[in-house]
Amino acid sequence: HFVLSLPLPLSPSAHIVLALRLQPLANPVLKYFLWVSFPLVLILFSVTFVQVVSIHAIGSGIPEMKTVLRGIYLTDYLTIRTFIAKTIALVAAVGSSLPIGKEGPFVHISSIIAHVMSKFVTTINRLYANEAHNNELLAAACAVGVSSNFGAPIGGVLFSIEVTSTYFAVRNYWRGFFGAVCGAFLFRLAAVWFKDEETITALFKTSFRPDFPFDLQELSAFAFIGVVAGLVGVAFVWFHKQYVHARRKLRNYTRLLEKHVFIYPVIVTILFTSLTFPLGVGKFMAGELTQHAAINHLFSNVTWSTLPPPHEAFQDLPEDSEEYQIVRQWGQPNIFVTLLLFSALRFLFTAIAVSLPIPSGVFFPVFVLGAALGRLVGEAMATAFPNGVNGSIVSPGGYAVVGAAALAGSVTHTISTSVIVFELTGQITHILPVMIAVLISNAISSALQPSIYDSIILLKQLSYLPDLKPNKYYNLYATDIMQMDLTYVSYRSTYGELQTLLRTTHHPSYPLVDAPDSRILIGSVSRHNLAALLEDHLRGLYKHAQQIRGTHDADEIDGRSGRNTPDKAADVMKKRISSVPHSLAKIFGSSDKPDFPEVDDRMEWSSDQEGPKQALDELKEELLSQTIDFKKSYIDPAPFQLVERTSLYKIHSLFSILCLSHAYVTSIGRLVGVVTLKDLREAIEGKLKPIEERSRSATLIEISSTL
Amino acid sequence: HFVLSLPLPLSPSAHIVLALRLQPLANPVLKYFLWVSFPLVLILFSVTFVQVVSIHAIGSGIPEMKTVLRGIYLTDYLTIRTFIAKTIALVAAVGSSLPIGKEGPFVHISSIIAHVMSKFVTTINRLYANEAHNNELLAAACAVGVSSNFGAPIGGVLFSIEVTSTYFAVRNYWRGFFGAVCGAFLFRLAAVWFKDEETITALFKTSFRPDFPFDLQELSAFAFIGVVAGLVGVAFVWFHKQYVHARRKLRNYTRLLEKHVFIYPVIVTILFTSLTFPLGVGKFMAGELTQHAAINHLFSNVTWSTLPPPHEAFQDLPEDSEEYQIVRQWGQPNIFVTLLLFSALRFLFTAIAVSLPIPSGVFFPVFVLGAALGRLVGEAMATAFPNGVNGSIVSPGGYAVVGAAALAGSVTHTISTSVIVFELTGQITHILPVMIAVLISNAISSALQPSIYDSIILLKQLSYLPDLKPNKYYNLYATDIMQMDLTYVSYRSTYGELQTLLRTTHHPSYPLVDAPDSRILIGSVSRHNLAALLEDHLRGLYKHAQQIRGTHDADEIDGRSGRNTPDKAADVMKKRISSVPHSLAKIFGSSDKPDFPEVDDRMEWSSDQEGPKQALDELKEELLSQTIDFKKSYIDPAPFQLVERTSLYKIHSLFSILCLSHAYVTSIGRLVGVVTLKDLREAIEGKLKPIEERSRSATLIEISSTL
Repeated sequence: HFVLSLPLPLSPSAHIVLALRLQPLANPVLKYFLWVSFPLVLILFSVTFVQVVSIHAIGSGIPEMKTVLRGIYLTDYLTIRTFIAKTIALVAAVGSSLPIGKEGPFVHISSIIAHVMSKFVTTINRLYANEAHNNELLAAACAVGVSSNFGAPIGGVLFSIEVTSTYFAVRNYWRGFFGAVCGAFLFRLAAVWFKDEETITALFKTSFRPDFPFDLQELSAFAFIGVVAGLVGVAFVWFHKQYVHARRKLRNYTRLLEKHVFIYPVIVTILFTSLTFPLGVGKFMAGELTQHAAINHLFSNVTWSTLPPPHEAFQDLPEDSEEYQIVRQWGQPNIFVTLLLFSALRFLFTAIAVSLPIPSGVFFPVFVLGAALGRLVGEAMATAFPNGVNGSIVSPGGYAVVGAAALAGSVTHTISTSVIVFELTGQITHILPVMIAVLISNAISSALQPSIYDSIILLKQLSYLPDLKPNKYYNLYATDIMQMDLTYVSYRSTYGELQTLLRTTHHPSYPLVDAPDSRILIGSVSRHNLAALLEDHLRGLYKHAQQIRGTHDADEIDGRSGRNTPDKAADVMKKRISSVPHSLAKIFGSSDKPDFPEVDDRMEWSSDQEGPKQALDELKEELLSQTIDFKKSYIDPAPFQLVERTSLYKIHSLFSILCLSHAYVTSIGRLVGVVTLKDLREAIEGKLKPIEERSRSATLIEISSTL
Repeated sequence: HFVLSLPLPLSPSAHIVLALRLQPLANPVLKYFLWVSFPLVLILFSVTFVQVVSIHAIGSGIPEMKTVLRGIYLTDYLTIRTFIAKTIALVAAVGSSLPIGKEGPFVHISSIIAHVMSKFVTTINRLYANEAHNNELLAAACAVGVSSNFGAPIGGVLFSIEVTSTYFAVRNYWRGFFGAVCGAFLFRLAAVWFKDEETITALFKTSFRPDFPFDLQELSAFAFIGVVAGLVGVAFVWFHKQYVHARRKLRNYTRLLEKHVFIYPVIVTILFTSLTFPLGVGKFMAGELTQHAAINHLFSNVTWSTLPPPHEAFQDLPEDSEEYQIVRQWGQPNIFVTLLLFSALRFLFTAIAVSLPIPSGVFFPVFVLGAALGRLVGEAMATAFPNGVNGSIVSPGGYAVVGAAALAGSVTHTISTSVIVFELTGQITHILPVMIAVLISNAISSALQPSIYDSIILLKQLSYLPDLKPNKYYNLYATDIMQMDLTYVSYRSTYGELQTLLRTTHHPSYPLVDAPDSRILIGSVSRHNLAALLEDHLRGLYKHAQQIRGTHDADEIDGRSGRNTPDKAADVMKKRISSVPHSLAKIFGSSDKPDFPEVDDRMEWSSDQEGPKQALDELKEELLSQTIDFKKSYIDPAPFQLVERTSLYKIHSLFSILCLSHAYVTSIGRLVGVVTLKDLREAIEGKLKPIEERSRSATLIEISSTL
């Protein structure tokens, strides 16, 4: 089950579409029509397919996988249905030429395969049924997804670790590598089989001089690329966030867009294809090129600024030469303007395209954008130093590689993009410039904005535990961030108190203490179990009501179905309680809807009979005043415990690794507070709540201050 | 404080020594004398320096750093004294031409620098005083150590993560990279400054054909190298272990070696240098070459087996050509025999040399050995397919690269060696063969033996938590591995019980429960604190004794110093208690020596006076029968708690990340057992103790089985 090898040769479809599009046609209007309509059909197909089969296939997949690996099971996210939707819709979407990538969807697809395979294996052999095992497999699948996308096993593994994990178990490392090597191997092997390549080589092979790739003094230019990439990355994440917010606002005004999901993708596609139409303004921004072709040009060892102007080039150079193609695509009006326009277009439309309701990755478009920016700096350097720096000719292709790695690293907050570019280009000559630029761009972007994946998590309001900022020192302890406004049940609580508790609060679980005054933490009981306890206990009451009112009346107690016995009603109720989506409760800390059935409501149904009602009321009083018998209930004996002086570092590690949603704070056995995922998140983000808000009940403050 | 850039250009010394040694001399006897004496002097200097300055400088440093990062502070291991000893002794040892590496010592050296710097920063600014911060810094320092050794920033970071961590915090990742890039940059920059290189390039630059580096069918040969490397790696670790055991046994018989630490290194050095003497048998095993030069030859793109035999080569080839040098070193009697002898010699002497009492790393010698084995397979392939496989000429240098990565990976249980070779050679052409071989060799070695570093940790009996085996499924829970034979103090315990407890058991800390019957866990109290409690409580007794016996007699109570007052005696005692090395106690779980002063002993001293003795005895009885007042003592309110159904996976994560030495197992608040590091280790290693041994007190079994 480790061989998660996923070559998934999706790109052919794109090639076919492209070939069709570039068919020489006489009529420019017909050309324009074809240029626009092909992507439009593909995008519409993609949108429809996703809407019909599974809307969980929308988007990248990395933010969601990060959430799943955090221990929060997103329903329907790892089903075969979603797999089909994502795979087919992705092929169509990628073929559309919109600036979207496929590494995120690949991660999602291979995770689904892993999950389904793991379920299958588990059915055969119970030995493998293990939470840890499942998570390990998913982590490996993420690695495979990235690796098979680029044919970059090492970079893929590292990238997937960086974007999905907070703490990484080194023992799973080789598992990821194994899967990744298989994936990358088959991916590249597919190219050999399909006769694209003679043997297994890098995807975007470069040919920089290995002997003297750059002069030491050029390092400052590379550092400059790092700064630019950092700032552009920050701007990109910011723009994407603003754009999504703006669209949401717009959607609130006009219900039109929501009803007709197609309108918005159609507008975006028409806009993008019109702008890139090679006979229109598209010729000023290399609009004809696919992302793959653009990278081949950008990483090329040809120095663009030394090429002849278009009219000369078209006469002198052979048509199939790289130089000819570069001049044709980038030479009008001038390479610097084209590169700038190309970058601006990509910047805007990448942010827009990744928020379309189709499967879409963000890595590769950003990578292309970075390559364009790097090439821009490189060409500027080559123009400024035509005789080279210290006698070493400037190689702008190297700058493009550095720019690509730096921008991709900046947007995703990863350093492993540097490894990915080595594997992609098959050359490791620019290791130092790449590392320097990537580190600088990462430092800038992580100081100013979350990564694009974390930003999407925030926008989607998925459960999220941000990583501690590496260069910030938190002097916080559990006591600084915990909620002191506690709700708990004790061994001495009565059923009446329990009923009030369940009615007034909506936590997914409650701490159980020995007695209200000593408050020694015994364990934790889920809301579901407490509700069942109360239900069970009051069942006697229904039975009694049944006896008083006769069988017919008792039926009415249920109030809805005439044939339900009270026992059955209780069962129905139980089912209803247990059907409360726990994932939701887990995600939001507490669900907004009351999941506890109002016990009193039923009592009202018998209010027409005065005598029995009084008897029932008395019985109810009596029942509710009894202390709870916890023997019948399941008590989670492992509520996670912290102490007041547990540092934020430790709390963060515990929450990350054990995927906790909350932990109780005890002081010498005594329950004094609770830290929820939300509290922790707010503490890390610096939005610490004032102490008054954390301890609304004055008594508790009093008690805890005397400790 | 992140700029832990450590170029440490230690190699020049080796160059100088080598240049001296290779001076052409007429007399073979004089040559032999020089050949042997230079290394001997260097080794003797190294041994002496280490013995005089700090014996903690002996060995690699990686096993110890792994232990330190586990949270166990090894005394004197991170001092400036050790730094000086390690640095200077390492220069001498590396210069001696013995097969030892320097990546382990580099890790140790940079860790000391980080530690000292961190202490310094902490003194200035208290904000940085943080356990987490210190550990992060040490982890980064390890990365810098490896990186600056090879000029391989990425591989260095990954290697250091793999060998030192079980769980890795991704947020520290960039820190390591940053330091590593600085380190690697300066390391390579140093080469430019010293005019070794024109610009920054790879250390062992290779020049394989980038277009068609290998045919797909050669992959089976590369996989074969993986298998060989895996088995040789296993054999190496096994041999090293047996050798160390044998030497220890020998040492037990003859005390001579222990007294005279020099004898053993002298014997080894003379043996090794005699075997490698180029005019003797050394010429059959490339004895003249340093490890650096050997790698240059082994990684060369020249196919050795196609070279002319020595007598022709010496005539035809220019003396300064690579081919000439290769034939001279490896051509006699024939390259296959030489490679085999070279490998055998390296295999034996690497295992021997790394156990000498000098600073020594194991990575690079093993890397050289792997390169030789790979070259052997490559040359065999080149001979078997003189026209190439499928028309692609076999390039044995690539096989050497694969072999080096695979064997180094197999011995150290790391995959990142594959990244290191790319950075070392500056070529990424062989990425797939390298990855395949490394994965195979890792799979074999991790199935059969621990890594060399873990093996050394075991041999040195350092505190050690083995990683979970990735391909083994543990169906164990806390209840399966915990000790049920509990000792605890309760709020109802008397001082007398405490005295008995401290006398009969020697744990570093004791759980505190509310009462013996309910056994709700309240916290944990250290042995030291308990002893102080008892001491304080009985102080009244001494005072009383003082009153009865007068000042002069009271002095005698102390028994040793005539002028000590009882109060002072108590102080002395307290000091004595607090001076118990906690690190020791931490390391061994419980110290073997009783650290609790026998209170009764003092009472005996007054036994000559019958009346007062009786009064004292009565007072003592009374005092001891009082219940303990824990208010005066520090209770650790955060003893780590597990529940019976906590899985081994979770326990392992908790122990790894929080650096626990023990954790209590509770069942609904009730203390039922304790899991120590030792229990966990034994469970992982499959040496699970039977239940009888884990619960010697029958009553406890009874209680826990009724729960």
